[in-house]
Amino acid sequence: MSFKPAFVKSLNPDLSYKTEILSKYTMELEQIKSPADIRDLSVTELSALCDKLRQAFLVKISAHGGHVGPNLGLVEATVALHYVFNTPQDKIVFDVSHQTYIHKMLTGRIMAFLDPKKYDDVTGYTNPNESQYDLFTIGHTSTSVSLAGGIAKGRDLQGEKYNVIALIGDGSLSGGEAFEGLDEGATLKSNFIVVVNDNNMSIAENHGGLYSGLAKLRETKGTAKDNYFKALGYDYIYVDNGNDIISLVEAFKKVKDIDHPVVVHIHTDKGHGYEPAVENKERFHWSMPFNLKTGQLLNPDEGEDYSDIFSSEMMRQMKADPKVCVLTAGTPGVLGFTPELRKEAGRQFIDVGIAEQEAVAMASGIAKSGARPCFGVVSSFVQRAYDQLSQDVAINGMPVVVNIFAGTVLGMNDVTHLGWFDIALISNIPSWVFLAPTTAEEYLAMQRWAMQQTSYPVAIKLPGGEVRHSSEPVDTDYSDLNKFKIMRKGSEVAIIGAGTFFGVAEQAADLLSKEGIDATVINPRYLSGLDSEILDNLKTDHSLVVTIEDGVISGGFGEKVAKYYGDSDMKVSCYGIAKKFLDRYNHAEVLKENRLTAPQIAEDICKIIKK
Amino acid sequence: MSFKPAFVKSLNPDLSYKTEILSKYTMELEQIKSPADIRDLSVTELSALCDKLRQAFLVKISAHGGHVGPNLGLVEATVALHYVFNTPQDKIVFDVSHQTYIHKMLTGRIMAFLDPKKYDDVTGYTNPNESQYDLFTIGHTSTSVSLAGGIAKGRDLQGEKYNVIALIGDGSLSGGEAFEGLDEGATLKSNFIVVVNDNNMSIAENHGGLYSGLAKLRETKGTAKDNYFKALGYDYIYVDNGNDIISLVEAFKKVKDIDHPVVVHIHTDKGHGYEPAVENKERFHWSMPFNLKTGQLLNPDEGEDYSDIFSSEMMRQMKADPKVCVLTAGTPGVLGFTPELRKEAGRQFIDVGIAEQEAVAMASGIAKSGARPCFGVVSSFVQRAYDQLSQDVAINGMPVVVNIFAGTVLGMNDVTHLGWFDIALISNIPSWVFLAPTTAEEYLAMQRWAMQQTSYPVAIKLPGGEVRHSSEPVDTDYSDLNKFKIMRKGSEVAIIGAGTFFGVAEQAADLLSKEGIDATVINPRYLSGLDSEILDNLKTDHSLVVTIEDGVISGGFGEKVAKYYGDSDMKVSCYGIAKKFLDRYNHAEVLKENRLTAPQIAEDICKIIKK
Repeated sequence: MSFKPAFVKSLNPDLSYKTEILSKYTMELEQIKSPADIRDLSVTELSALCDKLRQAFLVKISAHGGHVGPNLGLVEATVALHYVFNTPQDKIVFDVSHQTYIHKMLTGRIMAFLDPKKYDDVTGYTNPNESQYDLFTIGHTSTSVSLAGGIAKGRDLQGEKYNVIALIGDGSLSGGEAFEGLDEGATLKSNFIVVVNDNNMSIAENHGGLYSGLAKLRETKGTAKDNYFKALGYDYIYVDNGNDIISLVEAFKKVKDIDHPVVVHIHTDKGHGYEPAVENKERFHWSMPFNLKTGQLLNPDEGEDYSDIFSSEMMRQMKADPKVCVLTAGTPGVLGFTPELRKEAGRQFIDVGIAEQEAVAMASGIAKSGARPCFGVVSSFVQRAYDQLSQDVAINGMPVVVNIFAGTVLGMNDVTHLGWFDIALISNIPSWVFLAPTTAEEYLAMQRWAMQQTSYPVAIKLPGGEVRHSSEPVDTDYSDLNKFKIMRKGSEVAIIGAGTFFGVAEQAADLLSKEGIDATVINPRYLSGLDSEILDNLKTDHSLVVTIEDGVISGGFGEKVAKYYGDSDMKVSCYGIAKKFLDRYNHAEVLKENRLTAPQIAEDICKIIKK
Repeated sequence: MSFKPAFVKSLNPDLSYKTEILSKYTMELEQIKSPADIRDLSVTELSALCDKLRQAFLVKISAHGGHVGPNLGLVEATVALHYVFNTPQDKIVFDVSHQTYIHKMLTGRIMAFLDPKKYDDVTGYTNPNESQYDLFTIGHTSTSVSLAGGIAKGRDLQGEKYNVIALIGDGSLSGGEAFEGLDEGATLKSNFIVVVNDNNMSIAENHGGLYSGLAKLRETKGTAKDNYFKALGYDYIYVDNGNDIISLVEAFKKVKDIDHPVVVHIHTDKGHGYEPAVENKERFHWSMPFNLKTGQLLNPDEGEDYSDIFSSEMMRQMKADPKVCVLTAGTPGVLGFTPELRKEAGRQFIDVGIAEQEAVAMASGIAKSGARPCFGVVSSFVQRAYDQLSQDVAINGMPVVVNIFAGTVLGMNDVTHLGWFDIALISNIPSWVFLAPTTAEEYLAMQRWAMQQTSYPVAIKLPGGEVRHSSEPVDTDYSDLNKFKIMRKGSEVAIIGAGTFFGVAEQAADLLSKEGIDATVINPRYLSGLDSEILDNLKTDHSLVVTIEDGVISGGFGEKVAKYYGDSDMKVSCYGIAKKFLDRYNHAEVLKENRLTAPQIAEDICKIIKK
């Protein structure tokens, strides 16, 4: 069955009439079962199809939230790719894959965009469990060229023939893995097509020398000398209007079945077709539900968060001391650094692009010079710089400060963005002091100490969930390493609640007191070492130590406590997340499954103690 | 005091007369206390100095071993840098820093090259503990531009003025971190000098599209279009003869105090001035002591090793199945793949250049295509691909096989090359099956299983120390995950000896039997999970479980066992390496300090059991 939409000359620019849009297009769009259904359309019909897909996408995204600009800019290219190439035999690997909503609409999942009840049938990224058109579960940037290069290499080893396409945005090109993939991919002596989706934007604006080169290519319609892609050995085609379906189809037809590596550099418009997203590209990279007519958020989040706490504190520190600087690897918004604050901070705010290795190594160089760097990074991305954390920083003892955002089971729940692994990652590297504040006040005290001292690399894991506050005074000096703090002195059982879960430790103790058990409650503060004095003292009148941490148990904090007491009579129970990947989980359910709620922990403790 | 050597027109080409060479130059060279001592020499005198430094270097390196070719090729550039720039006020960051022997000779450490008794006074890499001229302890590639960029950024924040120079080899440019550093460094609006030491070689030959571009630049004396460095926004100078002191001094004078980022691309000859090293660049990248006249190793290592076992096995597998391929990230020699074997393997042997991220992500793509990749990598370098191991492989469940070489306390002892962290790194990532063979036979069985199955990503940690053999048959199927193997059934105490240290577990048990203790000995085989059945059964007649692993205890295998028994009466003692960095340690001493010898472990067990 072939899908033949009616030709629509001009679309109603008033996007507020969602019902009208839906009723108008749904019947046509829902006939798209696979890309084969669009392959005998004329390009004029394709153009109309693009408009309809865009409208339908906007209706869903404005109601549901998700990645806005990256998808709007890529409507035409996605349609052109599936029109020209013989997917799924031909393989397309999408970088980050947050720009694959239109791809999903064309590959058998259209109802997840048309029927609000089915909105959550698809993830926000490619997912092989959903469709054979999705090759990998992807969410981190800069991997597509390497992955696609591997497919091409494997295809050649097996003597097969098909097109392999990597689609990568200009923002992702700043990641070293993208360079490595391009460098190796260029050596293929066979079909390999890299589509560079250049909208002159990363999540925020781009940073890096590469981007002046890309700008020259755009200005000269691809003819500028010192072409980055040609320098790496690629054949090269430039498409000036990457939102023009005719140009795209023509370009893709030109490279289809090509026998060597080629870059198709398409110049697109992030947010294309939706004025608010074009006007404010950073705000509309990803959005919570918004009013389609105005672009305003439906439920603006007014709550306090660590992004604002961080940016306020660091603005203050930077004003007081020109040596202080803040680094981000392409996510200034996560750090609470709005365009206005970035401007105000001037050269003290450094965005290195999506390049975590660079951020960490550069921070080491900055510290070596005598200046004071703080790198703010999302937990899931800090793991991209493990070697730099170890070699460039820890071995050299450089007083680099890292603030880890979203390192919590209470945060992002896409499998590619889990914030569970940072304790196992950082606490096992020698030299790092890894702190887990439990409240905003404790965080600020730790951060101020970290930035003032010059003896250690210090990482701080910002607590998850709602911002908690302490009424009690917090310590200002953390240089006496690994000193836990006893917050409540009891006997029988001691509950060590790290960071996010200190509150749960307190609640569990409250519940236990009702059972006549007077629990000790400890804020360990340090994830990178143990307080042997306190742990030894507990032996005198405690028989059980319970640890609770906001991370995977495997390789984490609790196991170290268990090992410490291994040759003693002390019993130890460790709470945290089980070592497995979860995708789009329900927060409350996962807490329950891992027995991370206060009633469960109290119940378990009762069982052990009363045994 | 200034150093004025006598002018030497031509050097004796017969390098065998070490004593003569030493007596001839020592008195002159030993007067070099700092670079200031060479700054009022004429360039002709500099040339003579280079020859003498080269001869003295050869005398030491042939007797002591170390990095040969990288240093020989860089004699003139090192002298020219310290001659032109005002070190240590001006800062030079050397990539990898294995090419800094001449730098050390010029910066107060010449006696470590002239006096055999002092040969070991210096490390093989830059080391701030040795000299203020050494900025970082470095040993991994591709970090110099990021580190130097950080220094430049910090310098600017503090309003200071000095030259910042990164010196990076062409081989290191394949690492993504080098790209990230170049990309960000190009945005500096101040002095930043990147010297690219291009000898058209990595450790082995280069791989990647970038290198065809560099070749064109060399062929055209820097004038070819599509210049990689210009594409990233750098000013650019080319020096065709990078072993000509006059050209180098001229070029460095041109860029000294420059007010923007510039690349000085120098074309050098790896091994320059020593025929065997020029002729056989790969063999002389690093060498054990050799006969200076012939280039032959003084004590050729004839022993069996896992490099040969690996390459033999994989050659066999590749011949039997065209879908099988082996990947390396620039270290084919470590994998036992000589130039001859590489040629024989053809396209089934893939060297991606020094680019571990690419190797792992590409392997995922290869596996996706249906082919069967095995990535062989040194333990210290596998950590450069943590994010790819997790995201590109584990989340996607791709049956990528990784073989980890030198993951042992018995191996490399430079602080930058420790092989202790792989258990904490990989065993805490979900989905990976991490195997620890104890003998060559067990390794081969595991490797064959790993390459045949397609259900899991599998990492295998090759044992350290001398190759051990099993006389008993080994299992061929490891798909029933996390099944430990009881090798000797006893009572009271169970010793779980993983990988390298299984033999120590056996020896400890032998010692214990003399004390009347009949220990159980277990080969866990899996580092990524526990055998709850066996561990539970031990509770019936054992009171102590001892774990021994070849890695840092923190985050490792033993802690998991301790946590498992946390709520039981079982006592657990964990043996492994304490979490700290060590540099050039004595293997036997470190084993003793960590109580990793059989007598110590047996002694500890007696104490606990007889308590």
